[in-house]
Amino acid sequence: MKVESQKSIKGFSKLSKEAKIEWVVNNYTNNPELSTSLLKSYWHEELSIQKLHDEFIENTLTNYYLPFAVAPNFNINGKMYCIPLAIEESSVVAAAAKAANYWLGRGGFKTSVISTTKIGQVHFIWKGSDKTKLSEFFNQIKPKLYSQTESLTQNMRKRGGGILSIDLRDKTDAMEHYYQIHATFDTRDSMGANFINSVLEEFAKVLRSEIQLQPWSDIEKEIQVVMCILSNYTPDCRVRAEVSCPIQDLDGDILSPEEFAYKFQRAVRIAEVEPYRAVTHNKGIMNGIDSVVIATGNDFRAIEACAHAYAARNGQYASLTHCNIENGQFVFYLEIPLSLGTVGGITSLHPMVKFAHDILGHPGAEELMQITAAVGLAQNFSAVRSLTTTGIQKGHMKMHLLNILNQLGACEDEKAKVIEYFKDKVVSYNAAVAAFNKFKS
Amino acid sequence: MKVESQKSIKGFSKLSKEAKIEWVVNNYTNNPELSTSLLKSYWHEELSIQKLHDEFIENTLTNYYLPFAVAPNFNINGKMYCIPLAIEESSVVAAAAKAANYWLGRGGFKTSVISTTKIGQVHFIWKGSDKTKLSEFFNQIKPKLYSQTESLTQNMRKRGGGILSIDLRDKTDAMEHYYQIHATFDTRDSMGANFINSVLEEFAKVLRSEIQLQPWSDIEKEIQVVMCILSNYTPDCRVRAEVSCPIQDLDGDILSPEEFAYKFQRAVRIAEVEPYRAVTHNKGIMNGIDSVVIATGNDFRAIEACAHAYAARNGQYASLTHCNIENGQFVFYLEIPLSLGTVGGITSLHPMVKFAHDILGHPGAEELMQITAAVGLAQNFSAVRSLTTTGIQKGHMKMHLLNILNQLGACEDEKAKVIEYFKDKVVSYNAAVAAFNKFKS
Repeated sequence: MKVESQKSIKGFSKLSKEAKIEWVVNNYTNNPELSTSLLKSYWHEELSIQKLHDEFIENTLTNYYLPFAVAPNFNINGKMYCIPLAIEESSVVAAAAKAANYWLGRGGFKTSVISTTKIGQVHFIWKGSDKTKLSEFFNQIKPKLYSQTESLTQNMRKRGGGILSIDLRDKTDAMEHYYQIHATFDTRDSMGANFINSVLEEFAKVLRSEIQLQPWSDIEKEIQVVMCILSNYTPDCRVRAEVSCPIQDLDGDILSPEEFAYKFQRAVRIAEVEPYRAVTHNKGIMNGIDSVVIATGNDFRAIEACAHAYAARNGQYASLTHCNIENGQFVFYLEIPLSLGTVGGITSLHPMVKFAHDILGHPGAEELMQITAAVGLAQNFSAVRSLTTTGIQKGHMKMHLLNILNQLGACEDEKAKVIEYFKDKVVSYNAAVAAFNKFKS
Repeated sequence: MKVESQKSIKGFSKLSKEAKIEWVVNNYTNNPELSTSLLKSYWHEELSIQKLHDEFIENTLTNYYLPFAVAPNFNINGKMYCIPLAIEESSVVAAAAKAANYWLGRGGFKTSVISTTKIGQVHFIWKGSDKTKLSEFFNQIKPKLYSQTESLTQNMRKRGGGILSIDLRDKTDAMEHYYQIHATFDTRDSMGANFINSVLEEFAKVLRSEIQLQPWSDIEKEIQVVMCILSNYTPDCRVRAEVSCPIQDLDGDILSPEEFAYKFQRAVRIAEVEPYRAVTHNKGIMNGIDSVVIATGNDFRAIEACAHAYAARNGQYASLTHCNIENGQFVFYLEIPLSLGTVGGITSLHPMVKFAHDILGHPGAEELMQITAAVGLAQNFSAVRSLTTTGIQKGHMKMHLLNILNQLGACEDEKAKVIEYFKDKVVSYNAAVAAFNKFKS
């Protein structure tokens, strides 16, 4: 236990970055010198830029590289986009780009925003027995909830947003004495988390002080605010993306257009009815979505949580995309809640995020929702197309081949030979090793 | 439309990185020169290392920096860890580190792996009417499914893993003529996606060829394999993390230990019964989980999809953590499916991922599952503790203050003054701007 106890530390966050690194490499690596130079080699050469990145979070030692790539040729509502994607998984960018090309000649992506409403809640406990008292009280203080938050909402109102509604919700069916202030917001081009949370905390203050002024019993005047917090579940902040064309215009690779259309539809249908498949199916959609979300400086955990909860909204987890074939027309679409921002957070700070917004033409939140949804749909189209035609492994392992060769320490010449060798063969790890050994110079 | 049509391109993926950048900046930015030098400034100084990162995915232009940080002082099952975290959101690392410190003196985190079973499926259509024929046929070919995949499973079996079970599932209730081969796997320290997919595609081959040999009608001999694919839904690949202590040992900040314990429990209970809160609550858990998942080279979309589908398994989306108070003992725990790998993929390629595994002491998959779950629980503890005591905004906006000041272009001296000024005040964007203007030199 003696050695172990040296491995804890007090006041770590207050150390300089250099001192933090020193402590970590000395206590947790076998080669402190090599580790230190590794960490430093990942710093940006400009100290001021590195400092900016360091300060995004706490205890930063260096940068984690995610590949930053682009998928060109996205035609969305008639406008061409070259879409920035930050992701570590091979084949995601290739799949997005492939689907963009596929639909470029078939009318492109059609997208629309359904709504952009955000949600926040004050969760509280009230032990009175006469519920009408509480609801009358709430209606009475409602104007105050607006007026007392005016300084907080001022900027947002100037931009055309603000509080949309404030309701009292009786949740005593779910838990004894449990009520909510459930409020909806329009946060324009910002994700709005800080805005909503600040407003909610002010709501709670009003609630607590106003209830004291009621001519009620002590129990009725007692209110316990459990917490004030925005909801990441925003099912109404939703966007739709669609591709469609006559069946005969489809290219089904090894299948005829007709066979492909119906097999594709069946694969999507399976994801609608079978949760084990739905999770993987939607995971593929999120490969595309998250790549854009990260590149544009948004919070992918919020996007993920909301999308998957939405996928489970009817009681059974199901596909977010759907496929219809009617009158010879193939229609494939995605409907997904995406609470994205294009101002605030790190959007105007992170140089690569700024670049991402730049090549997208500085979209507002609604345009970014549509771009992101199109990439999600594109991703899913490519994945289901591969799955239902040649199978996923052929393409995926080809993409992964370079990783395997790098791991084996192959030089450029060896890589080229092995890649050529696999042009018409199925890649597996063992086959890749065998081929590498064969071509090793 | 003429201008737009120039913004598409053929054969983009085959261009050199330099040529890709040239096309992107010329067609999608206003200042191609500045954009090019920005992209290049984010390259690693060592060309060979940069090339490695470029080759992880397709169409790579440069690196997207995620801050790479550590949270020290994690006592997990009596062993001390300094945990690597890659994340862009301020306060995540601070919250993890704070919870680690909090529980360091209270017995630390207790974790255990419940199971590590992975799942894969061959989805197929069979239109015969006598289902017993199909199930007898399946039982007959089952040994072949094992024997024909022996070369694929050989390495995994050497490591103690392989195929655990192969079952036929009748899914005709969900969709007409729909059946599955549902197989479970032990993939040891690898995530196992490529392994599982390759085995499944081989299962499909056996299925297709063997059914031809049956003395059946043409309809019965016709089988349509819709797709072969692992499932990212692995509810049994699950881990549990727990913290506990006597109530009187709790520190409830502005609340007494007792008040804090019950208010905390109530907040968790709300996340158990109210989906709008549950999504945000679990999102906070995933802040911690994903930070470790990314730093250790795992696939966070797979982890997210599975965790949230698991949260919705009972028909209503609910909290992944739970809190019990019994006989004066406060118990807070997380149960979550986490299909993680410590070999394969980019784990042995990405230098920062290798460093992450290094400071964790090169854990196997089961140990990494437990470390990751502990961080998720820690994250949730800090979030719910803030929410139920001082409110989330106080801490969060303090963390965000630096971002706001950087955005305003504050120098070091101005930053120090403004931070000092807010030591005992609530931060809001407007207040930060006002304070900055006041202290501007």
